[in-house]
Amino acid sequence: MVRDPKTSMAWLRNLSKYSSTIAKLSSSPKTNTDLFFLLPSFTFLSHFSSNSIQQKPSNSNTKHVIEYSGLLEATKPHEKPRVVVLGSGWAGCRLMKGLDTTTYDIVCVSPRNHMVFTPLLASTCVGTLEFRSVAEPIGRIQPALSREPGSYFFLANCTAIDTHNHMVQCETVTDGEETIDPWKFSISYDKLVIALGSKPSTFGIQGVKEYAIFLREVYHAQEIRRKLLLNLMLSDVPGITEEEKRRLLHCVVVGGGPTGVEFSGELSDFIMKDVQQRYAHVKDYIRVTLIEANEILSSFDDRLRRYATNQLTKSGVRLVRGIVKDVKAQKIILSDGTEVPYGLLVWSTGVSPAPIIQSLDLPKEPSGRIGVDEWLRVPSVQDVFSIGDCCGFLETTGRQTLPALAQVAERQGKYLAELLNRIGKEGAGHANSAKEIEFGDPFVYKHLGSMATIGRYKALVDLRQSKEAKGLSLAGFLSFFIWRSAYITRVISWRNRFYVFINWVTTLIFGRDISRL
Amino acid sequence: MVRDPKTSMAWLRNLSKYSSTIAKLSSSPKTNTDLFFLLPSFTFLSHFSSNSIQQKPSNSNTKHVIEYSGLLEATKPHEKPRVVVLGSGWAGCRLMKGLDTTTYDIVCVSPRNHMVFTPLLASTCVGTLEFRSVAEPIGRIQPALSREPGSYFFLANCTAIDTHNHMVQCETVTDGEETIDPWKFSISYDKLVIALGSKPSTFGIQGVKEYAIFLREVYHAQEIRRKLLLNLMLSDVPGITEEEKRRLLHCVVVGGGPTGVEFSGELSDFIMKDVQQRYAHVKDYIRVTLIEANEILSSFDDRLRRYATNQLTKSGVRLVRGIVKDVKAQKIILSDGTEVPYGLLVWSTGVSPAPIIQSLDLPKEPSGRIGVDEWLRVPSVQDVFSIGDCCGFLETTGRQTLPALAQVAERQGKYLAELLNRIGKEGAGHANSAKEIEFGDPFVYKHLGSMATIGRYKALVDLRQSKEAKGLSLAGFLSFFIWRSAYITRVISWRNRFYVFINWVTTLIFGRDISRL
Repeated sequence: MVRDPKTSMAWLRNLSKYSSTIAKLSSSPKTNTDLFFLLPSFTFLSHFSSNSIQQKPSNSNTKHVIEYSGLLEATKPHEKPRVVVLGSGWAGCRLMKGLDTTTYDIVCVSPRNHMVFTPLLASTCVGTLEFRSVAEPIGRIQPALSREPGSYFFLANCTAIDTHNHMVQCETVTDGEETIDPWKFSISYDKLVIALGSKPSTFGIQGVKEYAIFLREVYHAQEIRRKLLLNLMLSDVPGITEEEKRRLLHCVVVGGGPTGVEFSGELSDFIMKDVQQRYAHVKDYIRVTLIEANEILSSFDDRLRRYATNQLTKSGVRLVRGIVKDVKAQKIILSDGTEVPYGLLVWSTGVSPAPIIQSLDLPKEPSGRIGVDEWLRVPSVQDVFSIGDCCGFLETTGRQTLPALAQVAERQGKYLAELLNRIGKEGAGHANSAKEIEFGDPFVYKHLGSMATIGRYKALVDLRQSKEAKGLSLAGFLSFFIWRSAYITRVISWRNRFYVFINWVTTLIFGRDISRL
Repeated sequence: MVRDPKTSMAWLRNLSKYSSTIAKLSSSPKTNTDLFFLLPSFTFLSHFSSNSIQQKPSNSNTKHVIEYSGLLEATKPHEKPRVVVLGSGWAGCRLMKGLDTTTYDIVCVSPRNHMVFTPLLASTCVGTLEFRSVAEPIGRIQPALSREPGSYFFLANCTAIDTHNHMVQCETVTDGEETIDPWKFSISYDKLVIALGSKPSTFGIQGVKEYAIFLREVYHAQEIRRKLLLNLMLSDVPGITEEEKRRLLHCVVVGGGPTGVEFSGELSDFIMKDVQQRYAHVKDYIRVTLIEANEILSSFDDRLRRYATNQLTKSGVRLVRGIVKDVKAQKIILSDGTEVPYGLLVWSTGVSPAPIIQSLDLPKEPSGRIGVDEWLRVPSVQDVFSIGDCCGFLETTGRQTLPALAQVAERQGKYLAELLNRIGKEGAGHANSAKEIEFGDPFVYKHLGSMATIGRYKALVDLRQSKEAKGLSLAGFLSFFIWRSAYITRVISWRNRFYVFINWVTTLIFGRDISRL
């Protein structure tokens, strides 16, 4: 039986009465004190205050008309100091994981609520792994974010930094939600860590953003997968020409770094095993071409590079040396004038600093990244640090900027967490209180080697510390085993370790999943 | 090392030369014979012929300019007859699974390449199950579709049926792909099975389509999940009012049938277990309201209904009896004038025939479904059958139209597969050759009972054959166990049985997944 309608409706009526009170209030001249008086329960949210509620002219019924503007106020001396982390990639997540939450409150601002386990992303495009298996919710990496009363995760983008007043400005992400306008709010910080990462480079080539797909986020992998499966199905339709069928099923990868090579390898595995069985009608039309201006896997040992080239060629990947000049909707044009028709174009040619980095009024190193000193501090301002792909050493340090690798970002996050924990324990966690503190050992990067899979249960492991050094390098099944073991232990939670393992086993037994969701 | 660039570029050059030949051809007056002469390899695709390739005026560079128009020709007497199945739901998939592929070629036309295991869909919205676990690729249900030379799956919508000429017209689905125009093509059939299902009813209420989310496809579940997680995160942002926080976190479900009840149950489970832990800041603001005009679970036994009402109320679901009059972007208005603000609105009030069904020139039964006789034939035309939600018994049969249930659809698919197999074996598989055939036993539906979960490891199982009959009914944990066992053995492939099992175990151990992909 349904509950007595009178009782069940009571709270709804209250809500709607309440709603009309607010409506009247916000259309009358805004007085914050009145509003707070009418919202007594608001006061127990000690950290929050609303500094203005404005009525915007409504230009569409579907849009929300009130623009909120909130503030997370500066911490008081008796409260825990607050570390604000911008970004949730390898650097930011490793930092948050390492921060001592008895010393600090943590606030993370990022447009995605999970960390992407990038080395396994290529495998999700063809269904070897599920998308969820490579995404780790930030609340699992640092549980304090969802539990501690002073720690928060905000699904938002940072729009500006005011280093003078120790504040960041943010705007909520509302992608796909047309009924909600973004909210603007500000956060006061005691320590600020900028870990905003990088964006894919397009080298100013026309059409890359419109027609190519990058491979850095889960939604990129989802887009690649949807397009690949759509093309496989479209190419089977009656009346389609041979030429169009070949075009639809031509997968072009631009960029021969580890991501491009791993994706090509996964794709040729998928073609050789799953397309043969599940798309038997069109199996002879599908091809993979990898275009690279220089050598593939240029950071790897010569011998490994030759091995990779042979293996990829054997699995049917066409390696083409060429420079892309122009990208159109269905073909790319190389600098020698060759036209390459494609159905799927994946772009993985390296990275440059994120656009927000350029707009920040902070010192930069020569390639445009935020300039840091040996302790990963931004030296010209107080309490600001930067880690990961978005930072580089200032020329004054005499050090070379480190490559944009997960390994570097992860190590920097770990180092900075320890540094901040020490500063906090010495009582210098609050804003402007670390001026006299001894920072201790500077950050030193030790390269542990590079790894890349090339499909068919083969991988490369280069354990040399630099390109010039001597050291161990492995190729083949053994190194594939090492690669998988190394990665499975680095996937952060046990839940995801378990899922990645289960995904691999299922793929081995049942083949890859081909449903297009 | 990269292969010799000359060799590797050769095929690309050929392709681009080829492409310019085609371009010239298609801009000159179109002569199919010339085109086929130039495309010799086209001929080995025995089933296909292209009846026109037209040049459309190009209004945008991003759009493909050639409109293909293909035809899958009528089968020859010495070839296997062709069953064309429209739709890939419970009815169509069960039919395809049962068809004898040594007797028939099968062509399936559907806008999605997987079957949705609908009874488990509600669980995916809150992360109890993964989306993939409830989607079964059609190629796994009937492997002949991807392997047999005369069987196909086309990712397309049926746009018209020409029963006189035994033809269906189709248009490919290109959702999200702006660089591809849909292709039109026709398929000749020997037997046609219309299994196009139903669409959610909105009862002509304004705003339902714009603002509410249905729960029938995987993308609906994905949308619900994204919105729920977005609202949970937005409600934690500094400066948001109490009222807005309550609105964002108010989940309203309209419709108290099994889907609405199961979704409410899953949602309250999610709130009680996962939101408490992972969104501790806002846990006291989230609420679930289930609005139903009559009684919830009206097809179930009285005792079970009372049990469900108690259990749902205990888990914090508010049951409201009301009629929705109007739906706005952030509130619904009930017929008594009550305004109900919401952040998430899920609509599950029943179904009506799909729009294409209305447009078909076939006899209908009183509620607008395609009218069939006791053998599920459309009696006025040759070789056309209809099964599932889109069909109903003609008044002349003296039978009542069956409810739109997975159970009915599945049983009809099974029956029709056996009937068609028998017709095929008797040599009457080809078009217009079954006129003299004895159809044998008509279809008889025997209801096996109804099941629904209500969260907290509780379920209802009603084993009565009809609302008036007496019979066994169970509620509680034991029936939850029966429910899960019953469903896990009905998930079609072993792969998905395995995944559903793994998902349940992981949720039990690690909690639900909360990453917003």
